[in-house]
Amino acid sequence: MNDQEAFAIAVEEAKLSYNEGGVPVRNFHPGAKMHSLTLQIGAALVSKDGKLIGRGHNMRVQLGSPIHHGETSALYNSGRLPASAYVGSTMYTTLSPCDMCTGACLLYGVSRVVIGENNTYLGGEAYLKQRGVEVVNMKSQECQDLMEKFIKEKPETW
Amino acid sequence: MNDQEAFAIAVEEAKLSYNEGGVPVRNFHPGAKMHSLTLQIGAALVSKDGKLIGRGHNMRVQLGSPIHHGETSALYNSGRLPASAYVGSTMYTTLSPCDMCTGACLLYGVSRVVIGENNTYLGGEAYLKQRGVEVVNMKSQECQDLMEKFIKEKPETW
Repeated sequence: MNDQEAFAIAVEEAKLSYNEGGVPVRNFHPGAKMHSLTLQIGAALVSKDGKLIGRGHNMRVQLGSPIHHGETSALYNSGRLPASAYVGSTMYTTLSPCDMCTGACLLYGVSRVVIGENNTYLGGEAYLKQRGVEVVNMKSQECQDLMEKFIKEKPETW
Repeated sequence: MNDQEAFAIAVEEAKLSYNEGGVPVRNFHPGAKMHSLTLQIGAALVSKDGKLIGRGHNMRVQLGSPIHHGETSALYNSGRLPASAYVGSTMYTTLSPCDMCTGACLLYGVSRVVIGENNTYLGGEAYLKQRGVEVVNMKSQECQDLMEKFIKEKPETW
Protein backbone atom coordinates (compact mmCIF):
# COMPACT_ATOMS: atom_id res chain seq x y z
CA MET A 1 0.00 0.00 0.00
CA ASN A 2 1.49 3.33 -1.02
CA ASP A 3 1.13 6.77 0.57
CA GLN A 4 -1.76 7.84 -1.65
CA GLU A 5 -3.77 4.69 -0.96
CA ALA A 6 -3.18 4.79 2.78
CA PHE A 7 -3.87 8.50 3.04
CA ALA A 8 -7.15 7.98 1.16
CA ILE A 9 -8.22 5.56 3.91
CA ALA A 10 -7.50 8.19 6.56
CA VAL A 11 -9.65 10.69 4.66
CA GLU A 12 -12.40 8.08 4.25
CA GLU A 13 -12.33 7.51 8.00
CA ALA A 14 -12.60 11.25 8.64
CA LYS A 15 -15.68 11.44 6.45
CA LEU A 16 -17.26 8.38 8.13
CA SER A 17 -17.22 10.38 11.31
CA TYR A 18 -19.28 13.30 10.08
CA ASN A 19 -22.80 12.23 11.00
CA GLU A 20 -22.02 9.40 13.35
CA GLY A 21 -22.96 9.27 16.99
CA GLY A 22 -22.96 6.78 19.84
CA VAL A 23 -21.92 3.78 17.78
CA PRO A 24 -19.71 1.09 19.36
CA VAL A 25 -16.27 1.45 17.89
CA ARG A 26 -15.85 -2.18 16.87
CA ASN A 27 -19.36 -2.72 15.53
CA PHE A 28 -19.72 0.22 13.28
CA HIS A 29 -22.87 0.61 11.21
CA PRO A 30 -22.97 3.98 9.51
CA GLY A 31 -26.75 4.20 9.61
CA ALA A 32 -27.26 2.91 13.13
CA LYS A 33 -27.54 6.19 14.95
CA MET A 34 -27.07 9.66 13.64
CA HIS A 35 -27.64 12.35 16.16
CA SER A 36 -24.49 14.31 16.41
CA LEU A 37 -22.09 16.12 14.20
CA THR A 38 -18.75 14.72 15.24
CA LEU A 39 -15.14 15.62 14.83
CA GLN A 40 -13.84 14.52 11.47
CA ILE A 41 -10.30 13.33 11.92
CA GLY A 42 -9.30 10.00 10.45
CA ALA A 43 -6.19 7.87 10.51
CA ALA A 44 -4.67 4.74 9.03
CA LEU A 45 -1.68 2.79 10.31
CA VAL A 46 0.45 0.89 7.83
CA SER A 47 3.18 -1.53 8.81
CA LYS A 48 6.77 -1.36 7.66
CA ASP A 49 6.01 -3.89 4.91
CA GLY A 50 3.04 -1.89 3.60
CA LYS A 51 0.09 -3.65 5.21
CA LEU A 52 -2.85 -1.81 6.77
CA ILE A 53 -2.86 -2.77 10.46
CA GLY A 54 -5.40 -0.30 11.79
CA ARG A 55 -7.79 2.43 10.74
CA GLY A 56 -10.06 4.66 12.75
CA HIS A 57 -11.42 8.09 13.43
CA ASN A 58 -12.04 10.44 16.29
CA MET A 59 -14.63 8.88 18.63
CA ARG A 60 -14.54 11.51 21.36
CA VAL A 61 -18.24 12.29 21.08
CA GLN A 62 -19.43 8.82 20.00
CA LEU A 63 -17.76 6.97 22.88
CA GLY A 64 -17.67 9.81 25.38
CA SER A 65 -13.97 9.09 25.35
CA PRO A 66 -11.17 11.61 25.71
CA ILE A 67 -8.58 9.12 24.43
CA HIS A 68 -10.10 7.99 21.12
CA HIS A 69 -8.63 10.43 18.63
CA GLY A 70 -8.07 9.45 15.00
CA GLU A 71 -4.59 8.06 15.54
CA THR A 72 -5.31 6.34 18.86
CA SER A 73 -8.48 4.82 17.39
CA ALA A 74 -6.42 3.38 14.53
CA LEU A 75 -4.10 1.88 17.14
CA TYR A 76 -7.06 0.66 19.22
CA ASN A 77 -8.60 -1.02 16.17
CA SER A 78 -5.33 -2.80 15.41
CA GLY A 79 -5.98 -4.90 18.52
CA ARG A 80 -3.00 -5.81 20.61
CA LEU A 81 -0.32 -6.86 18.18
CA PRO A 82 3.21 -7.76 19.25
CA ALA A 83 5.29 -4.60 19.75
CA SER A 84 7.39 -5.54 16.73
CA ALA A 85 4.37 -5.19 14.40
CA TYR A 86 4.28 -1.44 14.97
CA VAL A 87 7.98 -0.70 14.66
CA GLY A 88 8.80 1.22 11.50
CA SER A 89 5.13 1.75 10.64
CA THR A 90 3.63 4.88 9.08
CA MET A 91 0.71 6.75 10.65
CA TYR A 92 -1.50 8.58 8.17
CA THR A 93 -3.70 11.22 9.74
CA THR A 94 -5.89 13.94 8.30
CA LEU A 95 -4.72 16.49 10.89
CA SER A 96 -1.44 17.32 12.61
CA PRO A 97 -1.27 14.99 15.66
CA CYS A 98 -1.97 16.33 19.17
CA ASP A 99 0.46 15.68 22.04
CA MET A 100 -1.25 12.42 23.02
CA CYS A 101 -1.21 11.00 19.50
CA THR A 102 2.35 12.23 19.02
CA GLY A 103 3.30 10.27 22.14
CA ALA A 104 1.36 7.21 20.98
CA CYS A 105 3.34 7.21 17.72
CA LEU A 106 6.60 7.47 19.67
CA LEU A 107 5.62 4.70 22.09
CA TYR A 108 4.93 2.25 19.27
CA GLY A 109 7.97 3.08 17.17
CA VAL A 110 6.10 4.67 14.27
CA SER A 111 8.85 6.00 12.02
CA ARG A 112 6.83 8.21 9.64
CA VAL A 113 3.80 10.39 10.21
CA VAL A 114 1.96 11.59 7.12
CA ILE A 115 -0.47 14.41 7.91
CA GLY A 116 -3.23 15.99 5.86
CA GLU A 117 -2.63 19.54 6.98
CA ASN A 118 -1.52 21.68 9.91
CA ASN A 119 -3.20 24.99 9.13
CA THR A 120 -6.25 24.44 11.34
CA TYR A 121 -4.21 22.84 14.17
CA LEU A 122 -0.50 22.39 14.72
CA GLY A 123 0.38 19.47 17.00
CA GLY A 124 3.58 17.72 18.02
CA GLU A 125 5.36 17.73 14.67
CA ALA A 126 8.51 19.44 15.96
CA TYR A 127 8.82 16.91 18.80
CA LEU A 128 8.31 13.99 16.39
CA LYS A 129 11.17 15.29 14.25
CA GLN A 130 13.32 15.87 17.30
CA ARG A 131 12.78 12.19 18.21
CA GLY A 132 13.77 11.04 14.73
CA VAL A 133 10.34 10.54 13.16
CA GLU A 134 9.88 11.68 9.57
CA VAL A 135 6.91 14.02 9.13
CA VAL A 136 5.30 14.52 5.73
CA ASN A 137 2.64 17.19 5.15
CA MET A 138 0.26 16.38 2.28
CA LYS A 139 -1.12 19.95 2.39
CA SER A 140 -4.55 18.57 1.55
CA GLN A 141 -7.19 21.19 0.80
CA GLU A 142 -9.86 18.51 1.34
CA CYS A 143 -8.68 17.87 4.91
CA GLN A 144 -8.52 21.57 5.64
CA ASP A 145 -12.04 22.06 4.29
CA LEU A 146 -13.36 19.23 6.52
CA MET A 147 -11.85 20.83 9.61
CA GLU A 148 -12.93 24.35 8.76
CA LYS A 149 -16.48 23.19 8.15
CA PHE A 150 -16.52 21.43 11.51
CA ILE A 151 -14.99 24.32 13.45
CA LYS A 152 -17.51 26.69 11.90
CA GLU A 153 -20.52 24.43 12.58
CA LYS A 154 -19.55 23.08 15.98
CA PRO A 155 -17.10 25.46 17.64
CA GLU A 156 -18.13 24.18 21.10
CA THR A 157 -17.14 20.58 20.28
CA TRP A 158 -13.82 21.58 18.75
CA MET B 1 -8.20 14.76 48.40
CA ASN B 2 -4.50 14.98 49.22
CA ASP B 3 -1.52 13.33 47.53
CA GLN B 4 -1.45 10.33 49.86
CA GLU B 5 -5.13 9.58 49.40
CA ALA B 6 -5.03 9.96 45.63
CA PHE B 7 -1.85 7.95 45.27
CA ALA B 8 -3.42 5.16 47.34
CA ILE B 9 -6.21 4.94 44.74
CA ALA B 10 -3.65 4.56 41.95
CA VAL B 11 -1.99 1.72 43.87
CA GLU B 12 -5.38 0.12 44.54
CA GLU B 13 -6.10 0.27 40.79
CA ALA B 14 -2.75 -1.37 40.03
CA LYS B 15 -3.57 -4.22 42.37
CA LEU B 16 -7.07 -4.66 40.89
CA SER B 17 -5.35 -5.45 37.63
CA TYR B 18 -3.31 -8.39 38.86
CA ASN B 19 -5.58 -11.31 38.13
CA GLU B 20 -8.07 -9.65 35.86
CA GLY B 21 -8.74 -10.64 32.29
CA GLY B 22 -11.18 -9.85 29.52
CA VAL B 23 -13.48 -7.72 31.64
CA PRO B 24 -15.27 -4.75 30.05
CA VAL B 25 -13.64 -1.62 31.36
CA ARG B 26 -16.82 0.11 32.45
CA ASN B 27 -18.50 -2.94 33.99
CA PHE B 28 -15.78 -4.24 36.18
CA HIS B 29 -16.46 -7.27 38.34
CA PRO B 30 -13.27 -8.51 39.98
CA GLY B 31 -14.41 -12.13 40.00
CA ALA B 32 -15.98 -12.24 36.55
CA LYS B 33 -13.13 -13.73 34.64
CA MET B 34 -9.67 -14.47 35.83
CA HIS B 35 -7.50 -16.07 33.28
CA SER B 36 -4.57 -13.84 32.76
CA LEU B 37 -1.92 -12.18 34.79
CA THR B 38 -2.08 -8.60 33.63
CA LEU B 39 0.09 -5.56 33.84
CA GLN B 40 -0.29 -3.83 37.17
CA ILE B 41 -0.15 -0.12 36.57
CA GLY B 42 -2.80 2.08 38.12
CA ALA B 43 -3.66 5.75 37.95
CA ALA B 44 -5.94 8.36 39.47
CA LEU B 45 -6.73 11.79 38.10
CA VAL B 46 -7.61 14.56 40.54
CA SER B 47 -8.92 17.95 39.48
CA LYS B 48 -7.39 21.28 40.43
CA ASP B 49 -9.88 21.59 43.30
CA GLY B 50 -9.05 18.17 44.71
CA LYS B 51 -11.83 16.00 43.31
CA LEU B 52 -11.27 12.54 41.85
CA ILE B 53 -12.35 12.73 38.21
CA GLY B 54 -11.05 9.42 36.92
CA ARG B 55 -9.32 6.23 38.01
CA GLY B 56 -8.17 3.25 36.04
CA HIS B 57 -5.51 0.70 35.30
CA ASN B 58 -3.70 -0.85 32.41
CA MET B 59 -6.21 -2.78 30.27
CA ARG B 60 -3.89 -3.76 27.45
CA VAL B 61 -4.50 -7.47 27.89
CA GLN B 62 -8.08 -7.27 29.15
CA LEU B 63 -9.35 -5.15 26.25
CA GLY B 64 -6.80 -6.21 23.66
CA SER B 65 -6.13 -2.49 23.52
CA PRO B 66 -2.80 -0.81 22.92
CA ILE B 67 -4.10 2.55 24.14
CA HIS B 68 -5.52 1.68 27.58
CA HIS B 69 -2.59 2.24 29.89
CA GLY B 70 -3.11 3.25 33.52
CA GLU B 71 -3.17 6.98 32.85
CA THR B 72 -5.20 6.83 29.64
CA SER B 73 -7.69 4.47 31.34
CA ALA B 74 -8.13 7.02 34.13
CA LEU B 75 -8.82 9.64 31.45
CA TYR B 76 -11.15 7.25 29.58
CA ASN B 77 -13.09 6.55 32.75
CA SER B 78 -13.53 10.26 33.41
CA GLY B 79 -15.89 10.30 30.42
CA ARG B 80 -15.77 13.33 28.20
CA LEU B 81 -15.64 16.29 30.53
CA PRO B 82 -15.26 19.85 29.30
CA ALA B 83 -11.60 20.62 28.57
CA SER B 84 -11.53 23.03 31.51
CA ALA B 85 -12.20 20.18 33.98
CA TYR B 86 -8.76 18.70 33.28
CA VAL B 87 -6.71 21.88 33.36
CA GLY B 88 -4.47 22.07 36.41
CA SER B 89 -5.26 18.49 37.44
CA THR B 90 -2.81 16.02 38.97
CA MET B 91 -2.22 12.57 37.48
CA TYR B 92 -1.17 9.94 40.02
CA THR B 93 0.38 6.87 38.48
CA THR B 94 2.21 3.90 39.93
CA LEU B 95 4.86 3.96 37.18
CA SER B 96 6.74 6.64 35.26
CA PRO B 97 4.48 7.53 32.30
CA CYS B 98 5.27 6.26 28.79
CA ASP B 99 5.42 8.66 25.82
CA MET B 100 1.71 8.22 25.04
CA CYS B 101 0.58 8.90 28.61
CA THR B 102 3.04 11.78 28.85
CA GLY B 103 1.40 13.27 25.76
CA ALA B 104 -2.10 12.62 27.13
CA CYS B 105 -1.20 14.58 30.28
CA LEU B 106 0.13 17.45 28.15
CA LEU B 107 -2.94 17.46 25.89
CA TYR B 108 -5.31 17.81 28.83
CA GLY B 109 -3.32 20.40 30.72
CA VAL B 110 -2.37 18.19 33.66
CA SER B 111 -0.02 20.36 35.71
CA ARG B 112 1.42 17.77 38.12
CA VAL B 113 2.32 14.12 37.62
CA VAL B 114 2.93 12.09 40.77
CA ILE B 115 4.63 8.78 40.02
CA GLY B 116 5.19 5.70 42.14
CA GLU B 117 8.67 4.93 40.86
CA ASN B 118 10.90 5.07 37.81
CA ASN B 119 13.41 2.32 38.56
CA THR B 120 11.69 -0.39 36.53
CA TYR B 121 10.79 1.97 33.66
CA LEU B 122 11.69 5.57 32.93
CA GLY B 123 9.20 7.36 30.70
CA GLY B 124 8.67 10.94 29.58
CA GLU B 125 9.47 12.73 32.83
CA ALA B 126 12.14 14.98 31.31
CA TYR B 127 9.75 16.09 28.57
CA LEU B 128 6.99 16.77 31.09
CA LYS B 129 9.34 19.03 33.04
CA GLN B 130 10.51 20.71 29.85
CA ARG B 131 6.84 21.52 29.09
CA GLY B 132 6.33 22.99 32.56
CA VAL B 133 4.69 20.04 34.33
CA GLU B 134 5.76 19.32 37.90
CA VAL B 135 6.89 15.72 38.41
CA VAL B 136 6.96 14.18 41.88
CA ASN B 137 8.50 10.76 42.50
CA MET B 138 7.04 8.94 45.52
CA LYS B 139 9.85 6.34 45.36
CA SER B 140 7.36 3.69 46.42
CA GLN B 141 8.86 0.30 47.22
CA GLU B 142 5.39 -1.22 46.93
CA CYS B 143 5.03 -0.01 43.32
CA GLN B 144 8.49 -1.24 42.46
CA ASP B 145 7.74 -4.65 43.95
CA LEU B 146 4.51 -4.93 41.90
CA MET B 147 6.37 -4.21 38.67
CA GLU B 148 9.31 -6.48 39.45
CA LYS B 149 6.97 -9.33 40.28
CA PHE B 150 5.15 -8.85 36.99
CA ILE B 151 8.28 -8.53 34.87
CA LYS B 152 9.66 -11.70 36.46
CA GLU B 153 6.45 -13.72 36.03
CA LYS B 154 5.35 -12.44 32.61
CA PRO B 155 8.35 -11.06 30.75
CA GLU B 156 6.60 -11.67 27.40
CA THR B 157 3.65 -9.44 28.32
CA TRP B 158 5.84 -6.65 29.65
